[in-house]
Amino acid sequence: MAAKRVGSQTMALSNAPSIIGNACVVGKKEGEGPLGDSFDYIETDPMFGEKTWEQAESKMVRHAFALALAKAGIEERDVSCLFCGDLLNQCIGTAFALRDSGIPYFGLYGACSTMAESLALAALSVDGGYAVNAAAVTSSHFCSAERQFRFPLEYGGQRTPTAQWTVTGSGAIILASGGDGPYVTHVTPGRIVDAGVTDANNMGAAMAPAAYDTIRNHLQDLHMEPMDYDLIVTGDLGSVGGEILTELFRADGVEIGGCYNDCGMMIYSQQLQDVHAGGSGCGCSASVLTGYILNNMRQGRWKKVLFAATGALMSPTSTQQGLSIPSVCCAVSISTQPPECGR
Amino acid sequence: MAAKRVGSQTMALSNAPSIIGNACVVGKKEGEGPLGDSFDYIETDPMFGEKTWEQAESKMVRHAFALALAKAGIEERDVSCLFCGDLLNQCIGTAFALRDSGIPYFGLYGACSTMAESLALAALSVDGGYAVNAAAVTSSHFCSAERQFRFPLEYGGQRTPTAQWTVTGSGAIILASGGDGPYVTHVTPGRIVDAGVTDANNMGAAMAPAAYDTIRNHLQDLHMEPMDYDLIVTGDLGSVGGEILTELFRADGVEIGGCYNDCGMMIYSQQLQDVHAGGSGCGCSASVLTGYILNNMRQGRWKKVLFAATGALMSPTSTQQGLSIPSVCCAVSISTQPPECGR
Repeated sequence: MAAKRVGSQTMALSNAPSIIGNACVVGKKEGEGPLGDSFDYIETDPMFGEKTWEQAESKMVRHAFALALAKAGIEERDVSCLFCGDLLNQCIGTAFALRDSGIPYFGLYGACSTMAESLALAALSVDGGYAVNAAAVTSSHFCSAERQFRFPLEYGGQRTPTAQWTVTGSGAIILASGGDGPYVTHVTPGRIVDAGVTDANNMGAAMAPAAYDTIRNHLQDLHMEPMDYDLIVTGDLGSVGGEILTELFRADGVEIGGCYNDCGMMIYSQQLQDVHAGGSGCGCSASVLTGYILNNMRQGRWKKVLFAATGALMSPTSTQQGLSIPSVCCAVSISTQPPECGR
Repeated sequence: MAAKRVGSQTMALSNAPSIIGNACVVGKKEGEGPLGDSFDYIETDPMFGEKTWEQAESKMVRHAFALALAKAGIEERDVSCLFCGDLLNQCIGTAFALRDSGIPYFGLYGACSTMAESLALAALSVDGGYAVNAAAVTSSHFCSAERQFRFPLEYGGQRTPTAQWTVTGSGAIILASGGDGPYVTHVTPGRIVDAGVTDANNMGAAMAPAAYDTIRNHLQDLHMEPMDYDLIVTGDLGSVGGEILTELFRADGVEIGGCYNDCGMMIYSQQLQDVHAGGSGCGCSASVLTGYILNNMRQGRWKKVLFAATGALMSPTSTQQGLSIPSVCCAVSISTQPPECGR
C-alpha cells in the first residue's frame, strides 16, 4: 500500500476518489454576479417557498444534493455516508435538509471551511474503502446567517468596510472509488491559528494566517511551489484577507499572485454589487467549487487546483465575551489526472 | 486488504486502532454520583477558575486532553489530527480549548452523539493509515448548555419529568496504530431518524428510534445477537428513551435487557440525585466511556462493548419554529481482542 502520510500534515489518497457529481444552488444576488452562468440553479425567492430562512436554507441544500445525485447518475440509497455542515447553531441547515435521506450521517462544523472539511473526510472514507460513494454537502444563507451572527435583517445594521457578505448557496459533491475524475489526491487538514483578531467584522484578517499556515505546510509536505498548481483558491478571505495572505507569502520570498484567487472575491462583482470585502459563508466556497471551479476543470482550463477553504471558529457568545477569533483552513488537492503510481 | 465494508452500514477496521490513552474530567455533581471513582479528575468549582461558563468548559477540555496524552505517554506534537465537538453554538467549547495545540483539527457536530462520531472518525483515520495517532475529544457543561438550549440559570426554570440533566464533563481518547488495546474494531455511522417528537424536554423519546435503527443494523451487518456483546451502552437516552429502545427491540422478539445500559442512567443516582430522566450531553457518554467503561474493559470485566452514542439534532431555533427533532446514533465497537484476521 502506498504511503498515506506525506510530510508533517498531508494525507495522500493513493486510490484517489473521483468526483462523479457536483452541483450548486444559489440565490438571486449570486446569480447576478460574474459567476452566474456556472451555477446549476438560481432561486430568485430568498424564502425558497418556505416559511422561515432556516427552512429555506434546508430546501436549497436538498435541491443541491438532488442535482448532484442526478449528475452522478446514482440514487440516495447508493451513498454510503454523508459529511455535512453549515453555519447555523447546531447545524440545522444541513441536518434538517437531509434527515429523510436514510444515509448514514456525519455532522461537521468548520465554519466557512466546511466544504473542504466535508470533502476531505468524504474522500478519506472512499479512499480507505469504508464507503463506495460518499457525499459532501454544505450551505449558508444570507438571511439565516445575518440573524444568527449579527442582527435581525429588520434592524438594518450598517456594515463596516471589512465586512463580508454571506453567500446564499449550497454545494454538493458525490465521490466514488471509480470514475474519470476530477480526483481528490491529497488532503491537508489545518491547525487552528489565532492571530488575536477580535473584530468579527474582519474575518478575512482573522483567517488569513490560518490559510497561510495550511497552504505553506501543504506545499512543503509535497515539495511543491505555488505555480505547480493552476489555481490555489482560498475559501473566503475576501479582499482584506487575500491581501494579507499574499503579503505573508511575500515575506517568505514566495509570490502566489499568479495562480491565487479567492472564492469570496470571485463570486460578486466588486464594482457592481455592494458587498464590501467580498463573499463569505460555507455556501461561498461550496458554490464556487461545485460550479465555476469544477466546471473549468472538466473543460480542461485547469488541471490541478488546491482548494483551501477557511473558517473563523468564533460564535456570537465568544465575540460578546471579547475573545479573539480562532481560525482554520483545510486544503484539498484536486486534479484531473489520477495520482502518480506509488505516491 | 480485508473488506472494509460489512453489510449495509458498517465499516470494519482490519488494522483496528488501539486506545492508548483515555481520560475524563467532570464536575462536582458527577463526582458525587455512582461512577465518581472512575473519573480522572473532579472539579468542584463549576467555573473551573475561569470568568465564563464557556471558558470553564474549554478549560475542562484542555485538562481532559492533557490527562489522556499523559496516559498515552505522548505529546501534542505526536498527534496527527484531532476530531472534536461539543454542544455550544459554533462548537466553541472544544475549538477554543484546543486552539493552541498546533494539531490539525476536524470540528464535528453530532449533538450528544459526538463522542462516538469523533471516536469513529479518529479510528478510520488511524486504521486507514492517514494518521499515526489521532484524538477524539468532546465536552458539555451544565451551565453553558442550560443558557444555550433552555433558559439562563438565574431564571430558575422548572424542569419536566422527562427532562435530562446535562453532564459537566469532558472525555478524551488517544488512538494509535499499534498498542495493546482496547481496540476499535467496527464503526456503524447512523442515519438520521425523526420520529416526530417536538418536545425538546423529551430527548430520550426523540433519540430512541435512532438508537434502535443503528444498533439493529449494526447487529444485522455483523450477524450478531445483542448477547454477543458484554455491554451495549447508549449515549444518553435516559430512563424514558431507554425503555422505548427496549420495547422497540422487544417488538422484534429481541431482548436486550441483559446486556444493555445507558450512560445517562449510569452517571447519576436516580435515588439520591435530582436529575429526573437521567444525564445527557456530549460529556455524559464521553466521561462514562473514558472513565467507567474503558476502566472496566482494561480490568477484564468486559471484553466486547458496543458504544452507541445518541444525538438530538435540534436547535433552539428549530424548536421555537415547532419542528420535530431529527436524531442520530453512531455506534463504535470496542474489544479487548484485536479483530479476527481477514474479517
